Amino acid sequence: MGSRSVIGRQIADYRAEHEHEILAEFCELLRHRNVATNRQDIASNAEAVSDALRRRGFDVQLLDDGSDCPPCVLGELTVPGATRTVVFYAHYDGQPADQPGWTTDPWTPTVRSGSTAAGAADVDWQQARTVDPEWRIYARSASDDKAPVQAMLSALDALRCTGNAPIVNIKVLYEGEEEQGSPHLSGILSRHREAIAGDLFVLSDGPQHPSGRFQLFFGVRGMTGLELTVYGPTRPLHSGHFGNWAPNPAIMLVHLLAALRDDDGAVLIPGFTADVRDLTGAERAALTALPGTDRAIAAELALGRTEGQDSLAASISRPALNLRGIEVGAVGERAANTIDTRARASIDFRLVPDQTPDRIRDCTERYLADLGWTVVAADPDTATLAAHPRLVKAEWQSGYPAYRAGFDSPPVCALIESVTRAIGVEPLLVPMLGGSLPLHTIAATLAMPVVGMPIANYDNNQHGANENLRIGNLWAAIDLYAQLLVDLSW
Amino acid sequence: MGSRSVIGRQIADYRAEHEHEILAEFCELLRHRNVATNRQDIASNAEAVSDALRRRGFDVQLLDDGSDCPPCVLGELTVPGATRTVVFYAHYDGQPADQPGWTTDPWTPTVRSGSTAAGAADVDWQQARTVDPEWRIYARSASDDKAPVQAMLSALDALRCTGNAPIVNIKVLYEGEEEQGSPHLSGILSRHREAIAGDLFVLSDGPQHPSGRFQLFFGVRGMTGLELTVYGPTRPLHSGHFGNWAPNPAIMLVHLLAALRDDDGAVLIPGFTADVRDLTGAERAALTALPGTDRAIAAELALGRTEGQDSLAASISRPALNLRGIEVGAVGERAANTIDTRARASIDFRLVPDQTPDRIRDCTERYLADLGWTVVAADPDTATLAAHPRLVKAEWQSGYPAYRAGFDSPPVCALIESVTRAIGVEPLLVPMLGGSLPLHTIAATLAMPVVGMPIANYDNNQHGANENLRIGNLWAAIDLYAQLLVDLSW
Repeated sequence: MGSRSVIGRQIADYRAEHEHEILAEFCELLRHRNVATNRQDIASNAEAVSDALRRRGFDVQLLDDGSDCPPCVLGELTVPGATRTVVFYAHYDGQPADQPGWTTDPWTPTVRSGSTAAGAADVDWQQARTVDPEWRIYARSASDDKAPVQAMLSALDALRCTGNAPIVNIKVLYEGEEEQGSPHLSGILSRHREAIAGDLFVLSDGPQHPSGRFQLFFGVRGMTGLELTVYGPTRPLHSGHFGNWAPNPAIMLVHLLAALRDDDGAVLIPGFTADVRDLTGAERAALTALPGTDRAIAAELALGRTEGQDSLAASISRPALNLRGIEVGAVGERAANTIDTRARASIDFRLVPDQTPDRIRDCTERYLADLGWTVVAADPDTATLAAHPRLVKAEWQSGYPAYRAGFDSPPVCALIESVTRAIGVEPLLVPMLGGSLPLHTIAATLAMPVVGMPIANYDNNQHGANENLRIGNLWAAIDLYAQLLVDLSW
Repeated sequence: MGSRSVIGRQIADYRAEHEHEILAEFCELLRHRNVATNRQDIASNAEAVSDALRRRGFDVQLLDDGSDCPPCVLGELTVPGATRTVVFYAHYDGQPADQPGWTTDPWTPTVRSGSTAAGAADVDWQQARTVDPEWRIYARSASDDKAPVQAMLSALDALRCTGNAPIVNIKVLYEGEEEQGSPHLSGILSRHREAIAGDLFVLSDGPQHPSGRFQLFFGVRGMTGLELTVYGPTRPLHSGHFGNWAPNPAIMLVHLLAALRDDDGAVLIPGFTADVRDLTGAERAALTALPGTDRAIAAELALGRTEGQDSLAASISRPALNLRGIEVGAVGERAANTIDTRARASIDFRLVPDQTPDRIRDCTERYLADLGWTVVAADPDTATLAAHPRLVKAEWQSGYPAYRAGFDSPPVCALIESVTRAIGVEPLLVPMLGGSLPLHTIAATLAMPVVGMPIANYDNNQHGANENLRIGNLWAAIDLYAQLLVDLSW
């Protein structure tokens, strides 16, 4: 602990002496437009990141899945004598930046004295003697997700300049298509699993906890999507002339959906929770220990109740069926006294370990059959319509399972302990985020645990206008990466 | 019966000798554009109809409700010694005619050898020696609803030329705004109830029975409309981050709607049927006697089942709750993993005697309250949202009760018997149509029974392109009106 503290001070001193230099390099990186649908922009980013890594001694490869997809940049820095390899993931592509409301150009990084929302003014940081950690850099991808890239580069500079050497082999895997839904990531990982091989996958993306405290997350929910279509008469009918006799697909769909879940979130599909792996005692304790922000969020959203009795954190640790939308007939001014020809609903399922999309599909379709529905996969012809009293088309969207690393494996334990030493306080441990990422695929393909270590401020406006990174968060991330690299061992 | 048959033959002979003259007058009437939103067009129609009535000896007034609305044309023909007055209703306005698909100009009446849909060709009827009753006149309002106007005019001509006199006082009430929803009719009736006073109200509008048989109808269902809005969070939420915790208004609405009716048409609102007046034995017998077209309709619509076990005719004699539409979130390509801020549904209630919109509103809102909903009439503010776990906005549309005249009153009995004598066969007796018209208001305001006596062919394309009247139906209506006027007594 003693020597780590010494190194910690050395890192902090280095960083304080090189703030302008670090910010200048980061701003240069942020000037590269990086929407993944523009292949030229993506190539320019991949090249800039590769060059920056090579300058730090990395061996760099651009990985694809065999197609002409935006590449993953894989950098490898081998440390003599090291027996463990840590893979640090981030992504260099960003969301489109055509939202209204950007105060300054999203591709011209601008430093302001705080949050634009709070009226902060532009700062001429290049002329300032010191940089206030409360200042923020405004640019697309400042937080999501180039900050971890810059933090790693600067952390390595800090170690080198202070005469400290990493004790683990370092790989960085910087994806170029995350904001497009990572359509090629799985193929890239499969194709290059040897090159990416390691012992621990640390993913830096997304924001810190709403409370402002540092968090690690150890999983995400999986997901699958379902589009349902229920059929009525082959042409719209006058409700006066045919109501009570011709089946109304709107009300049929209502009863189908009501049978799927109650309005407190409980899913009523038999077998839906059969594969659910319970949280461990440690995971339940970690959930309980999370700071309670539920009341503030409920007040902000004017919620008159919540679904069920659990906290938000506990609620999103359970599987869920969310009704995304219903489309049938019309309401208000456009409503007609009509029985429509079909009714549609869209559902997203959020899965937890060890549920799988296939098993969810099976138990859902079996349940619909038990309820008297004939389930088809394509629009029926009139003969099929006429032959079945209750016909529903079920279109399943490809999905993926959930992932939960747990807290117990040696590399995960080591990471938790090392982060605790680095930041001086135990981080919040979030067993699983409510949202979905293909972490299960990563962990299964690469055969190593995946842990999320987000570094951005919670109010970073990711995906929106005025995306920003609090500069203090960049400093903290540099300090953290550097200290992990000289401390992490198991 | 003997003298009626003699008169019947005289009428038929007159009509056969004057076919061209009758058609010429009808075509002239059909050349007047008659969409009620164009006040000049409406005035020209009202004047043409008034002139035609005055030429037959009617006293004519244009009735309004005190506002500058399209007038009702009231014509009165008093018969010396007559003790009964029959009011014949039709409307001289028409639907807009801007639909695609008109084969010839909707305002240039064209005679064809049959149905355009069956490929019939234009006929030069003015040069033809005789007119085939299967020919059809194509024009907007040929069937809906200028045919009864022409039939009455020609029936009176036939009586006069054959030396026969009506035995009832005749009033005709021709509305000018029916296709706009009759917004001023109630006011006009109230204001002029003395002028319109009579003993029996015979309404000729709409088509004959799908079987092709002549029908009388003795009522219509009433209606009222309800727009429901259920509230979720004040901004759309990520279903992964908030699902299972923030209430989803889509699923809340689904459960609300599922509680209102089952998918076999049964309304689950306590008290909903409390005011329902049962069909009489004669009405039930009349329903049973209606020709069965259910199987053909179900096959045409590819229905895999019907709601409940009743026939179509019996089903639409019961009250109904029809779900017109649902609007929340999105489906298919546009679906997002979101919890929406609100969900809307639109409902039309079809009422039967003696249900009233007010009582339906009361029992529905009481039921919603019993289910745990707080019912509001306007969008709630955030304090109201936060204070109530289940909040629904209920917006009721003005409606009106159902009407069923029954078969028993003396004028109704007399009409049924007189029609039977005129057409030589008992007409179909439909206790109540499934659709809705404000007949209850007419009957209550004018204190006389209302009976529907449609004359148009079933396949007349009313409201659509290529609206038409089968010429044989016009001849039959002339014969029928003339015979009723010399026969109807009680």
